[in-house]
Amino acid sequence: MNEFEIIEHYFKPKLPNNQQELELGIGDDAAVIDIPQNEELVISMDTLVEGVHFLKDTHPKDIANKSLLVNLSDMAAMGALPKWITLSLTLPNNNSDWIKEFSKKFNSLLADYSLALIGGDLTKGPLSITIQAHGVVPKGKFLRRSGAKPGDSIYVTGELGAAAYTLRYLEDSDEKLKPTKKEIQRLNKPEPRIQTGLELRDIATSCIDISDGLFIDLSHILRCSKVGAEVKLQDIPYSSTLQELKNSRRTKDLAINLALTGGDDYELCFTIPSNLSNADLEKIITTSKVSKIGIINKLSSKLNLIDGNDKPYKVESVGFQHF
Amino acid sequence: MNEFEIIEHYFKPKLPNNQQELELGIGDDAAVIDIPQNEELVISMDTLVEGVHFLKDTHPKDIANKSLLVNLSDMAAMGALPKWITLSLTLPNNNSDWIKEFSKKFNSLLADYSLALIGGDLTKGPLSITIQAHGVVPKGKFLRRSGAKPGDSIYVTGELGAAAYTLRYLEDSDEKLKPTKKEIQRLNKPEPRIQTGLELRDIATSCIDISDGLFIDLSHILRCSKVGAEVKLQDIPYSSTLQELKNSRRTKDLAINLALTGGDDYELCFTIPSNLSNADLEKIITTSKVSKIGIINKLSSKLNLIDGNDKPYKVESVGFQHF
Repeated sequence: MNEFEIIEHYFKPKLPNNQQELELGIGDDAAVIDIPQNEELVISMDTLVEGVHFLKDTHPKDIANKSLLVNLSDMAAMGALPKWITLSLTLPNNNSDWIKEFSKKFNSLLADYSLALIGGDLTKGPLSITIQAHGVVPKGKFLRRSGAKPGDSIYVTGELGAAAYTLRYLEDSDEKLKPTKKEIQRLNKPEPRIQTGLELRDIATSCIDISDGLFIDLSHILRCSKVGAEVKLQDIPYSSTLQELKNSRRTKDLAINLALTGGDDYELCFTIPSNLSNADLEKIITTSKVSKIGIINKLSSKLNLIDGNDKPYKVESVGFQHF
Repeated sequence: MNEFEIIEHYFKPKLPNNQQELELGIGDDAAVIDIPQNEELVISMDTLVEGVHFLKDTHPKDIANKSLLVNLSDMAAMGALPKWITLSLTLPNNNSDWIKEFSKKFNSLLADYSLALIGGDLTKGPLSITIQAHGVVPKGKFLRRSGAKPGDSIYVTGELGAAAYTLRYLEDSDEKLKPTKKEIQRLNKPEPRIQTGLELRDIATSCIDISDGLFIDLSHILRCSKVGAEVKLQDIPYSSTLQELKNSRRTKDLAINLALTGGDDYELCFTIPSNLSNADLEKIITTSKVSKIGIINKLSSKLNLIDGNDKPYKVESVGFQHF
């Protein structure tokens, strides 16, 4: 099949029912969307390259999962509802089995999240996937990195470190403790916190998704907001295997470092005003477990980690460097 | 420099003055745009891969030119005014000379076309560039491939075949006739017909940009519009060197085939109702030379080429296959 036939055959899934704004989708020089008057457009783009963002020979369905879901996680961090996707797929050869597996999973995710694939590109070359997600948010209601204020409480959703530990386990056969099935799944199938992002629109003063590790991503909030933070290591929600590693003196630092700097969690880190109690928050946030991990302070851009003995703690590296 | 420093240093050019709709640009999880109420959003995405879309060792400034301009050409084909760009750059290594040269040209093009770079990605991997262009068009005024009607006149802008002949010349040292400087430039620096696209909004019944060759791109209009066409070879505006090749019996077919199927022209092919004369059209289209090359007929999806003796003509291949 040539490019046009592949797109026609594999990448023209049924549109979901929420697509009244889509004027023109796949099949022209461009797509056309009529953004509703009371909403704003939110867009994010991510590229995944074989051997860099996923291991060689990763199953195409896992690549479909990861490439789409990391973009949806960016939408979640903005408080946006994702609706339209563009996909540029670069493939070494016209491997119809690969395309079939990838597109099957990709189309099923589109259906799960009520998304429409509205354009993109298909080219020959070393395996890589670029996706742009397009979402909407009521005007002025988007979340950003720059609004954290001294005194705000710092929260994260879910648990941290599962994907980072799984990657380490897969790459290092000496690692004894097997991650749980759920933890393994987190490496290739992040759970974008879209509904939680929507619930945070009216209360969060800042928000980011944790893609490169809590340490570096919270640091982005601090830099953009021109504030500092104190985070208590014992309040971090470690993934279950990391919790186990943390209980042994020999592996405690490994567990902390993976949870703080391992990356690929795709949980949300956000701040809320101090007058909102934990109980208030749990009434508003119904779609994720949330854990308070620290407090924003006035120390510009400085992130202080505090260990179980109230002593400062230093991580070994700051987090995943893309480049 | 790491990813953040590179973006900060090289990819935060001064915003043009037309960016009142941009709520949030580079530096958060996503960008936010407030599309004006009377306008629609038009988006197109293109990926260029080294060794596939441009030769190895192509100068970074030529890659910047081509990668941005082919996307703007899609905007032109829609009658859209491009305003916002996202860029995903995948580079084999942290080569600051390359990044410097690329970003310098890229930023100067952004300024030339009053565009804002609002987001993207920077990753390690085999050299490739994905760009998404975002433009606006008054509601309902976008051009599409599907509106051509029997009797409509078929036009193209500019001249065809310069880029295809230049590529052949660069790859084949036996080729004697050197392309002109202007023709050589067309290979790496297309001229997107943005202003012409705007002028066509109220009169064209269909429009496409010629990226894969006139034959295949006009065929897309025919397929989408469910019509046929008759095109006269002698009315095609051949690029000057091809015109010269066409005058010799030995190279005549080569010239015709390159002009029809060589690709990379980035001119517009469009149809207008037959009641609009050539003189009328030239009053409306002030920003490009336009040539009438044929007529739409009722023969569904069939493109007939007619040679100088009114005989049917068959091209050797249909055009550039991406995949």
